[in-house]
Amino acid sequence: MYFGSDNQAGVSAAIMQALVEANQGIAAAYSDDEWTHRARAAIADWFECDADVHFVSTGTAANCLALACSLEPWQIALCHGQAHIINDELTAPEFFTGGARLLGLDAQAPKLSAITLAHTLSQGSAHPPHNAEPAVLSLTQLTESGQVYSLEELRELTDIAHQYGLIVHMDGARFTNALVSLDCSPAEMTWRVGIDVLSLGATKNGAMTAEAVIFFKPSLAKKFVHMRKRSGHLLSKSRWISAQFLAWLKNDHWRELALHANQQARQLSAGIAEHPKCRIVWPTQGNEVFAVMPKAFIQSLRDQGGIFYEWTPSFVPAEQRVREHEAMVRLVCSFQTKPCEVVQFIDALHRT
Amino acid sequence: MYFGSDNQAGVSAAIMQALVEANQGIAAAYSDDEWTHRARAAIADWFECDADVHFVSTGTAANCLALACSLEPWQIALCHGQAHIINDELTAPEFFTGGARLLGLDAQAPKLSAITLAHTLSQGSAHPPHNAEPAVLSLTQLTESGQVYSLEELRELTDIAHQYGLIVHMDGARFTNALVSLDCSPAEMTWRVGIDVLSLGATKNGAMTAEAVIFFKPSLAKKFVHMRKRSGHLLSKSRWISAQFLAWLKNDHWRELALHANQQARQLSAGIAEHPKCRIVWPTQGNEVFAVMPKAFIQSLRDQGGIFYEWTPSFVPAEQRVREHEAMVRLVCSFQTKPCEVVQFIDALHRT
Amino acid sequence: MYFGSDNQAGVSAAIMQALVEANQGIAAAYSDDEWTHRARAAIADWFECDADVHFVSTGTAANCLALACSLEPWQIALCHGQAHIINDELTAPEFFTGGARLLGLDAQAPKLSAITLAHTLSQGSAHPPHNAEPAVLSLTQLTESGQVYSLEELRELTDIAHQYGLIVHMDGARFTNALVSLDCSPAEMTWRVGIDVLSLGATKNGAMTAEAVIFFKPSLAKKFVHMRKRSGHLLSKSRWISAQFLAWLKNDHWRELALHANQQARQLSAGIAEHPKCRIVWPTQGNEVFAVMPKAFIQSLRDQGGIFYEWTPSFVPAEQRVREHEAMVRLVCSFQTKPCEVVQFIDALHRT
Amino acid sequence: MYFGSDNQAGVSAAIMQALVEANQGIAAAYSDDEWTHRARAAIADWFECDADVHFVSTGTAANCLALACSLEPWQIALCHGQAHIINDELTAPEFFTGGARLLGLDAQAPKLSAITLAHTLSQGSAHPPHNAEPAVLSLTQLTESGQVYSLEELRELTDIAHQYGLIVHMDGARFTNALVSLDCSPAEMTWRVGIDVLSLGATKNGAMTAEAVIFFKPSLAKKFVHMRKRSGHLLSKSRWISAQFLAWLKNDHWRELALHANQQARQLSAGIAEHPKCRIVWPTQGNEVFAVMPKAFIQSLRDQGGIFYEWTPSFVPAEQRVREHEAMVRLVCSFQTKPCEVVQFIDALHRT
Repeated sequence: MYFGSDNQAGVSAAIMQALVEANQGIAAAYSDDEWTHRARAAIADWFECDADVHFVSTGTAANCLALACSLEPWQIALCHGQAHIINDELTAPEFFTGGARLLGLDAQAPKLSAITLAHTLSQGSAHPPHNAEPAVLSLTQLTESGQVYSLEELRELTDIAHQYGLIVHMDGARFTNALVSLDCSPAEMTWRVGIDVLSLGATKNGAMTAEAVIFFKPSLAKKFVHMRKRSGHLLSKSRWISAQFLAWLKNDHWRELALHANQQARQLSAGIAEHPKCRIVWPTQGNEVFAVMPKAFIQSLRDQGGIFYEWTPSFVPAEQRVREHEAMVRLVCSFQTKPCEVVQFIDALHRT
Repeated sequence: MYFGSDNQAGVSAAIMQALVEANQGIAAAYSDDEWTHRARAAIADWFECDADVHFVSTGTAANCLALACSLEPWQIALCHGQAHIINDELTAPEFFTGGARLLGLDAQAPKLSAITLAHTLSQGSAHPPHNAEPAVLSLTQLTESGQVYSLEELRELTDIAHQYGLIVHMDGARFTNALVSLDCSPAEMTWRVGIDVLSLGATKNGAMTAEAVIFFKPSLAKKFVHMRKRSGHLLSKSRWISAQFLAWLKNDHWRELALHANQQARQLSAGIAEHPKCRIVWPTQGNEVFAVMPKAFIQSLRDQGGIFYEWTPSFVPAEQRVREHEAMVRLVCSFQTKPCEVVQFIDALHRT
Repeated sequence: MYFGSDNQAGVSAAIMQALVEANQGIAAAYSDDEWTHRARAAIADWFECDADVHFVSTGTAANCLALACSLEPWQIALCHGQAHIINDELTAPEFFTGGARLLGLDAQAPKLSAITLAHTLSQGSAHPPHNAEPAVLSLTQLTESGQVYSLEELRELTDIAHQYGLIVHMDGARFTNALVSLDCSPAEMTWRVGIDVLSLGATKNGAMTAEAVIFFKPSLAKKFVHMRKRSGHLLSKSRWISAQFLAWLKNDHWRELALHANQQARQLSAGIAEHPKCRIVWPTQGNEVFAVMPKAFIQSLRDQGGIFYEWTPSFVPAEQRVREHEAMVRLVCSFQTKPCEVVQFIDALHRT
Repeated sequence: MYFGSDNQAGVSAAIMQALVEANQGIAAAYSDDEWTHRARAAIADWFECDADVHFVSTGTAANCLALACSLEPWQIALCHGQAHIINDELTAPEFFTGGARLLGLDAQAPKLSAITLAHTLSQGSAHPPHNAEPAVLSLTQLTESGQVYSLEELRELTDIAHQYGLIVHMDGARFTNALVSLDCSPAEMTWRVGIDVLSLGATKNGAMTAEAVIFFKPSLAKKFVHMRKRSGHLLSKSRWISAQFLAWLKNDHWRELALHANQQARQLSAGIAEHPKCRIVWPTQGNEVFAVMPKAFIQSLRDQGGIFYEWTPSFVPAEQRVREHEAMVRLVCSFQTKPCEVVQFIDALHRT
């Protein structure tokens, strides 16, 4: 019963097969191979625009290169207080940007609100060059608490940000989980609602290691190739990431993978919610379930083979205040989650 | 007839098979999986010591993280003037080290000499903190001109470096090509002759993307995991690099791959040397051949399907001075080079 | 009626005289002159310990070099949310530290509380190296809202910080204003209550440009001279800063200057408090007065020659909520503030 | 007999007097004071153009901020191999530029030659983004060996640099010594011969601590104020540097100071040249004398009170090869050098 993380999963069979098939003869190195040319075009097509697409092997590299292309070292990137970039990437954002600053907002809520954003930006900065000023807004879709920003919410947030001249970045480590949740097109969830640059992750949804930085505003990409090279993220044998993306896009393979993961999460969530001593913290909108349950249950589930993390309860909604004998857990489903694992887990819970 | 670069090759069948086999179920992320534990131990074993072993996906990352662990931002790393770190990694060394400096020596010779090193270090620095001081010596084995430092040469260079308190780094992007050339053990070519930290590349010798940083002096590794994380080089699905290394080491697979590449290069070299209008610039000791030939030949070989690079003739030995109508080329063999390609190339040359 | 800032004042007559007197013949450069040797020793004496003392010309340099000596680029420095380092030094802390992070706490209160600090540190970091961890606590004495931490408060905060292995830095841009307010010794307000490294500012209290970094824990200073040099803060004609410090310390000149400034502030505060439409926001403990008054008054006072800043009212105590027709102002006194200016200002206010 | 360095001198009486006079009342801080406005305009006037002028307190800060405004972190600044920026400023250039690279040329000659520059630039860079490329040429006027580039030489060098798209920086730590040597105008020695940005030093020629960065191409200055602030080089009490520059420019005070220094150096040089066992290494064109003399003389001169440095003989012209019993010395004159000191020194030499 593996619900630890979607990055603990393996590689989808179709993607692994694509790697095997890409192992044909010689290919130009350093992104100049045929696979890379095709994959870049395929992604631009997928987004129905002339996006400038580049590949790297980790989400941290994708996020931080996107940020580094979008602000100066004396500026600020705003993000949710629980965002991956501020919470889980050490100080990589500072490293890549040459020392720009992150400012986390709304850490107590599951999403960044337009009100908070507008308030923060309206305060302004009295005395340049003394005060660092916001230049980027970074949004995570799925958020770190498994929530999906609606298209309206995204539009509202990007409108405010653009009004103040900010660039808007989307951390799309779980982009496709959000996409199938909203049932909209990649274009609709990005540049059509004002996203300027996207980190698109395939790794968590079936790939081996495949991340892309996608500039919808190509002028932002000017320094990208230099920044990627000098951070050691230009792969020599570049065909391998590209081959993964090609397979991921082919026949909407990504959708099948993400739908499966989300569906398992929904089942899991429903099963947990039925237990009178458990409760779901936020609506299960993607492939992550956040639940509060008695600590004794957690131990028991682990004893029965459940793999999952306890989650920092710092931003549980007040009405769900975790009591002394309880704890909050995060359960993540992936393309690889077996329906029987979900059933087993719920059974185990209800037996407890 | 592909002699462009060994990083244009694909993946060896055994390594690809290992990837397929590693695609079994769930594995802990971020280097905490079973494959990674085993691969780290296997490499330490291979080196017959308690080396501290870490994986990354590019040679630039491996080199630069090794450097960043070995000096302060106000110090200097000495290297050969044609070293990959100073010539082909943009300013990645400066980026990772927070602004340390590279100083290239002996750019006109195929290897760094002990005399130059001793002379450079003996000059000293009169007035700290005004002058940046050398703290690292980085050696490339195979060198960028395909030469192998003998064990005696390595020992002499590291002795001088250590005498001045320097850390010695080896860039082993083509480590195994050198190893089979010297026919010695990994330990003999590294810590036993004074190497403190090694960048070990498997990518150029049959892997997909697999590089390691190996600290023979474990105290140097103290900051490594932080530096790797903040440069975006900690892979979430870490098993994949590890699985490559395991397959590469298994049954001395690396040796078979490297021997093949070197052997093809020797054949190629011998065939070229026989042509009265061509000459080999430096002895072919690894998998790279450097030759001077008439420009007309180059065009003709390309017309017949030859893939290779012209090479900057800046450091051709004086006695081999490239004449007006000539140019220098680099021909690289890999595990994938077919003997018939070599034969074909030599035939084409002699027919020209 | 100048209450803009204490850094808008000139230089005390005694310090200017010292500069004139130091202009005698030749002196060694780069901190190796007699004045510098004497000033370093005099400051260590003043602190009654073997402090390691270094000079720079700005408070930002002093703060940021102190921070850079105290943490790694992947760590966090905690500070009050209104601290100068996080609010008024652009991203200099990130620049000097190579990309460490600042985390501002208690921005809504005039001082950082032990409760907040303990709470923040107790949360811990679950998964190194993913999460950046606190390694420094930076306290400002006088705070940016003119408050003085008592010796007990300092001791409580440093105890908590040390319990978690943090280094404690004090930003003493207005150190002497706090010192005369507490009427204690320099040692009592620093290392005796757990301060590890201090930025000591003389500039705001009568000097031309004279700041010191003082390491009470000399092991922290190991990299200082290199960091100062490479940030361009090693003055060649070093005697001039040292001569200022010597004059500032001589016969407790600093005390006379700071007492005067604080006393003027107290007078000013008392005069404002008497006006029924004005109120003092925080007790006037140093040389800064924070008051709320009708906006009409502000205009009128400026028309009569009053120089001062409106202040961001973001962290006014709730019970003092600034009403629509009011605004908050900051009035700073310096060694140069004339008693008649204070009288004039109060008269003008009461006439309004 | 002080010939150690011109930064061991004091402050000219006129400049000290100006500081005393500037100590009048309150002044806006952070470069917004009247003195600063006037000094910026005065310098632009002096250069007969709309230069964008900014002040800092050290030459290293001026040089490094100028460089940081002129290239990207993945580019190269070319300079003479003995330039101050590469030899005497630790790794400050790397720090300020975020990790750009310096490449020293012609270290064996007293000046950088157009031939070397053209050759270096003509080699080009084959494979972006793998190779760092030159983006800045930095020239030192006076050079570190006391030589003056003629206007023709400057023009030739800047023409070549501009042809390849480089920005040309001049390190003018001893700008006025060169200016009086060439007897031309500030404009003629800078933007009229193609200099784009200048570090202008007054410190070595009579000021206390006063350096300026002067952008003749104002578009280069866009990031300057942010970079100065975040490197801690924006002084709060900014009037003091400005007052020095005003006094330095007034009535061509700088000229009088520089003429004196150069004249003393010429006398000294002539006196040394007359000694049959001594020889002048390069023509004495500014305020520095480089001479070879018997080691025994050096000791004897020091015993008689001579203060000066031995100089690294690494780039003595071949025809002057320093023999076993000889050494090379540098003797620097300043505005403060007394004619009697020169006479005394020559007498002492000839008595030896």
